[in-house]
Amino acid sequence: MIYIGIDLGGTKISGALFNTNNSILLRETLLLEGKGGEEVGKLICKVCEEILKKGGFDESDDKCIGVCVPGISYSKNGRVWCPNIPGWENYPLKKELENRFPNSNITIESDRTAYILGEVSLGVAKGCDNAIFIAVGTGIGAGILIDGRVLHGASDIVGATGWMALKPPYNKEWDTCGCFESHASGTGIAMQAGKVYPEKVTSRDVFEAYDKGDPRAIAIIDEAIEMWGMAAANFVSLFNPQMVIFGGGLFGPASKFIDRIYNEARKWAQPIAINQCKFEVTQLPNDAGLYGAGAIAIKNEQE
Amino acid sequence: MIYIGIDLGGTKISGALFNTNNSILLRETLLLEGKGGEEVGKLICKVCEEILKKGGFDESDDKCIGVCVPGISYSKNGRVWCPNIPGWENYPLKKELENRFPNSNITIESDRTAYILGEVSLGVAKGCDNAIFIAVGTGIGAGILIDGRVLHGASDIVGATGWMALKPPYNKEWDTCGCFESHASGTGIAMQAGKVYPEKVTSRDVFEAYDKGDPRAIAIIDEAIEMWGMAAANFVSLFNPQMVIFGGGLFGPASKFIDRIYNEARKWAQPIAINQCKFEVTQLPNDAGLYGAGAIAIKNEQE
Repeated sequence: MIYIGIDLGGTKISGALFNTNNSILLRETLLLEGKGGEEVGKLICKVCEEILKKGGFDESDDKCIGVCVPGISYSKNGRVWCPNIPGWENYPLKKELENRFPNSNITIESDRTAYILGEVSLGVAKGCDNAIFIAVGTGIGAGILIDGRVLHGASDIVGATGWMALKPPYNKEWDTCGCFESHASGTGIAMQAGKVYPEKVTSRDVFEAYDKGDPRAIAIIDEAIEMWGMAAANFVSLFNPQMVIFGGGLFGPASKFIDRIYNEARKWAQPIAINQCKFEVTQLPNDAGLYGAGAIAIKNEQE
Repeated sequence: MIYIGIDLGGTKISGALFNTNNSILLRETLLLEGKGGEEVGKLICKVCEEILKKGGFDESDDKCIGVCVPGISYSKNGRVWCPNIPGWENYPLKKELENRFPNSNITIESDRTAYILGEVSLGVAKGCDNAIFIAVGTGIGAGILIDGRVLHGASDIVGATGWMALKPPYNKEWDTCGCFESHASGTGIAMQAGKVYPEKVTSRDVFEAYDKGDPRAIAIIDEAIEMWGMAAANFVSLFNPQMVIFGGGLFGPASKFIDRIYNEARKWAQPIAINQCKFEVTQLPNDAGLYGAGAIAIKNEQE
């Protein structure tokens, strides 16, 4: 069987040929260059074609293709919602790929689902059947693998973790992106900083100010740590995972707080469940989405 | 096929013969009378024997038996933890039943899992593949059905909802039973009341005082409503269910607050997910656990 993983990012499409143990045999990358709509669909097909050509395969050979998209994959109709790709509000990606590659088993998943599958197939959670990947970047989302299966939910929007309710009473400033995300994502940390710094600062600036002992930064980061701990505790109590993995752009600079996050979670979580659960920072290579896409292709065939 | 559902309660064992559409054909009940250990296992067998006899079946006929236990069912080894049954810290219930009824397909689930299966097979969530049952009684737990499957997790303790982290900073008074449960379960409401009433009061007393306009009761119940709303919002954002069902002893008197709970949840939850989700109070007959056990027996054969 031929396994192809495709990671659709904001600026490029990365593709790779995988073997069954999730190593990359060869790669292919194309830049998006601001393209949208069907053009992006065709570029994805082109990446697949190049991989097949480089690998010396025939296009009619049976293959499994796993695709990781930065948004939502609607598992029931094969469409995707990718807010950063123009014209991909409800794009029929699966149909497009099936038309181009008829002898293919195609699975499309959200990036957060790809990350958790990447982690359990070759990252820190290797071999786990129950693990959570909390992706903390511009926003916050989670990939959830329980009882050996990734969750989808009624309309494929499980893991909308940024909306976690953690700090009553409700505050209107959370309307746009949720309570947790408004305090503990990259955007959220910058937003909180905007209230206490006269100049415009990024979350990275806040982490640097924290390191220099700036009390304003310390207050913001301490609150984020408390919230990361509470949110992780809620995952532990509700899902009973073997591992909670923090990743995304902020882990990164927040990685050094993983022990403080665990200690905060420990206070709140169901005591047996937290005792059985490890907290880790992602160790996946930079292209987590690509490895996840490969894992999706391989898992797909096994099911 | 013969379908038998068994509900092990704190004081009695209820059993019934079911047909495939989850109606009860005949019943049998035995009292526990304080028994523990193997004696309870034998009583469960006896209930099954009586049902088979009354139904005119032979003991060697193929059958599916679903059992609902008030505690945790360890799916990997067939043992159960039931804190209210003496000697059932780690009781090999599945083995006991398999020894007695060799031609049987036996599945044991926790009561909260039985409740959600009961709801989707014949209650308000009939036909749903994605639904959450939040059981609010002495404690708080949840039965979770996602993508058509009940979740178990690494060690079968998913849904430990009473431990949900909802109100920072952490308070030591939550050590025993968790933040959410310490404010919004029967025990929790009585515990909060203990701080403001000179006499000993139950949660039922607090609901009655609320109806009479007592401001102490109003403050306690208002906080519980906020927390029920936040917790339900977290289920909606994380699991993307079609329905959240409130049940257990407090729903009951708290049923009239379901709209306020929904309105609170609406503030916090991922907006698309909450728009697609209904909140309901359980409509299951009194013996929800028994109907759930029947649903387990029937579902078991279909898998």
